Amino acid sequence: MENKKIPYKIYLDENEIPEYWYNLRAFMKNKPAPLLNPQTQEPATLEELSNVFCEELAKQELDDTTKYIKIPDQIRDFYKMYRPAPLVRAYCLEKALGTPAKIYYKFEGNNTSGSHKLNSAIAQAYYAKEQGLKGVTTETGAGQWGTALSMACSYFGLDCNVYMVKCSYEQKPHRREVMRVYGANVTPSPSNTTKVGREILEKFPGTNGSLGCAISEAVEVATNTEGYRYALGSVLNQVLLHQSIIGLETKAALDKYGITPDIIIGCAGGGSNLGGLIAPFMGDKIEGKNNCQFIAVEPSSCPTLTRGKYAYDYCDTGKVCPLAKMYTLGSGFMPAPSHAGGLRYHGMTTTLSQLYADGLMEARSVEQTSVFEAAEYFARVEGTLPAPESSHAIKVAIDEAKRCIETGEEKTILFGLTGTGYFDMISYEKFHDGIMSDYIPTDDEINASLANLPKIK
Amino acid sequence: MENKKIPYKIYLDENEIPEYWYNLRAFMKNKPAPLLNPQTQEPATLEELSNVFCEELAKQELDDTTKYIKIPDQIRDFYKMYRPAPLVRAYCLEKALGTPAKIYYKFEGNNTSGSHKLNSAIAQAYYAKEQGLKGVTTETGAGQWGTALSMACSYFGLDCNVYMVKCSYEQKPHRREVMRVYGANVTPSPSNTTKVGREILEKFPGTNGSLGCAISEAVEVATNTEGYRYALGSVLNQVLLHQSIIGLETKAALDKYGITPDIIIGCAGGGSNLGGLIAPFMGDKIEGKNNCQFIAVEPSSCPTLTRGKYAYDYCDTGKVCPLAKMYTLGSGFMPAPSHAGGLRYHGMTTTLSQLYADGLMEARSVEQTSVFEAAEYFARVEGTLPAPESSHAIKVAIDEAKRCIETGEEKTILFGLTGTGYFDMISYEKFHDGIMSDYIPTDDEINASLANLPKIK
Repeated sequence: MENKKIPYKIYLDENEIPEYWYNLRAFMKNKPAPLLNPQTQEPATLEELSNVFCEELAKQELDDTTKYIKIPDQIRDFYKMYRPAPLVRAYCLEKALGTPAKIYYKFEGNNTSGSHKLNSAIAQAYYAKEQGLKGVTTETGAGQWGTALSMACSYFGLDCNVYMVKCSYEQKPHRREVMRVYGANVTPSPSNTTKVGREILEKFPGTNGSLGCAISEAVEVATNTEGYRYALGSVLNQVLLHQSIIGLETKAALDKYGITPDIIIGCAGGGSNLGGLIAPFMGDKIEGKNNCQFIAVEPSSCPTLTRGKYAYDYCDTGKVCPLAKMYTLGSGFMPAPSHAGGLRYHGMTTTLSQLYADGLMEARSVEQTSVFEAAEYFARVEGTLPAPESSHAIKVAIDEAKRCIETGEEKTILFGLTGTGYFDMISYEKFHDGIMSDYIPTDDEINASLANLPKIK
Repeated sequence: MENKKIPYKIYLDENEIPEYWYNLRAFMKNKPAPLLNPQTQEPATLEELSNVFCEELAKQELDDTTKYIKIPDQIRDFYKMYRPAPLVRAYCLEKALGTPAKIYYKFEGNNTSGSHKLNSAIAQAYYAKEQGLKGVTTETGAGQWGTALSMACSYFGLDCNVYMVKCSYEQKPHRREVMRVYGANVTPSPSNTTKVGREILEKFPGTNGSLGCAISEAVEVATNTEGYRYALGSVLNQVLLHQSIIGLETKAALDKYGITPDIIIGCAGGGSNLGGLIAPFMGDKIEGKNNCQFIAVEPSSCPTLTRGKYAYDYCDTGKVCPLAKMYTLGSGFMPAPSHAGGLRYHGMTTTLSQLYADGLMEARSVEQTSVFEAAEYFARVEGTLPAPESSHAIKVAIDEAKRCIETGEEKTILFGLTGTGYFDMISYEKFHDGIMSDYIPTDDEINASLANLPKIK
């Protein structure tokens, strides 16, 4: 028994919800490369970005110098409805594994969107409301972001049009219904409601869709409809900024007990959860205040960091968005229809890409079946049924905890449990029935996709 | 602004989790009538009950004198994984309604079973483990109890066989898969795996099933299989005892701010959630310490308290369980297939029945469509997507809050938000599509069912 017994769940008080977001880019020595206008290949301007995003969000997108950005009171009020999120000490998991490691996870699933996505959704809806807009358009993969944005728009009385990646739309019909509860319109993507959707359908009839493709459709509608802007659940700098609340709360909770993690692990699709979780810890590492190890975990079916290329690429299949310098598999890459829809993105947020390029962060790819094995094991010992996306982090956290058994090290392992798996039961069913695919793309497939990267002057 | 600002969510500390359950019967002047052996019509003995339940649970079932019963440490440890549950101040709901009422709800949905059922499941699994059993059998309606017991059995390494009411089994295929994650076997009821199931299928081919019928099947298997006992998610005294943790935590949280509710509202199927929520408040009322109003809310499709009869009846369709004196619609009553599977029970726990008979508690029945209207309204303003069962309480809480607008009274309204609606999206879909039934049984139907009550000497 330690002097100060650590509870199963460390909750902060409501008034300890951070008042400022943490802008990790402002702490980085090598800044992420700027977004480029796809026509001119010049850095995207505030004016250009403001055609796509709300102006305040466009400002946040470009700001890589302000270290702390104030969270508006109305957003903090909304946060109080479901935050602070608990930081859980995984006593049961530690015991079941027999590891000397100390395992913590920040649980972001205790809200109806079922994930951390609500943290940025409410911010994006707030700024849209402030700007006097009618509504927003967006895309959604697993459906968590679409649900989150629906909830946020409902709260502020905004319209919400969601393009949902077709394979998720079909795998998760109930997700659509949740969004409907919150008043959103949901369209499977690619659709024939947009020019880019029609083009993709013509080129790839029978496609399962992808995040990159749904983004193109949502952007096309937003930029062609009066009073609308586009909202995105990951990849963007603004999203990482909003998600820094995850890391800030986690750090505040750990600081109460004088704990600094040795390893921080998160799943990475576009990078929003991991970028948010690590933000203040990475900032400290850059300033020499800790020597923490950071691990991004991605599916081996969509191995952006571990097998992609660090280069300027389109963020979307339709090539309507700005170019971003990031690890990418090519904007035309169509990952196998895995059960972690939220991780099926060809690129990676520029901040994490730069940190990975600089050796400040590691990455691992893991196969689907091993992820579900970890997920079920976790559910049984810790109670909570995890989302397939989050389970990528669980898999590597367990691997690291097992390694501590061999080495005898009492490492402190922190991972992000981004969401719950209530809408993923078809995936669990396939896992139970032993009919889950572990398809890994070949080098030829990846190289063929990378051959189409844009030429930069 | 009050002196002591009440936060959105009042969390207790982990060490404030109650150490004793609250045995409401011990506080009642008119005790609930004893369970009777269906053959002899004599009060059921400890020995008889111990053939069905674990011995320790059988003792709890019969104990109407011990006011506080110690919660074993291993159960409290499990509680720490998901408790204390938050008590939420519904600021957003109050504002949206424009009511002077102060609304609170105790939210029991933040665990993977999605409801309060886990509170008793872990207790029943613990005592089964302590007795050295191999496993337990049970029934489940909406699926919440079955999920909870699966989780609890997985934690203690026990087998878990679940008979799931057929209409829920078909409406909620994903529920079955969650139970499978936790290693349970799930059978739709009525089934041909039991004698009673075969009889019911023969008599009512094509039946949607009912809780009463699933109970019979589970009891038959438990009492005929070596090393097994039966576990039940509601109705029983032992379950109300375990669920008193809801009320105890709620009261402890309110006491911190010096608040006594004027009205306490809960949905009532078998009565477990409501009995648990009101326990310490009702005990205080009996002792003259408060003048709180208690309201049980039931579906008008299964109006046990509001239209049933207070009499000895069978607890199950197959008539294998002890007789209980309770409000009942007759053990053969087959409610219309509503979307609140957890409230489709023909009877009501003896404790609540006695309190209702004594005028200490009121009851209201509400129609399904109005419940879903309240549910969606609540989801949009408070964020959380409620279970259809829980939404019965929301409906009446909103009615009472609206009444306060008219009268100007600043009443404090507390209700139980027992669970989340993630597995009820087919029901929400029917609501959205306007194809939801509001069937109310006729007097003739109810009287025909009540004509078959057992004759008591």
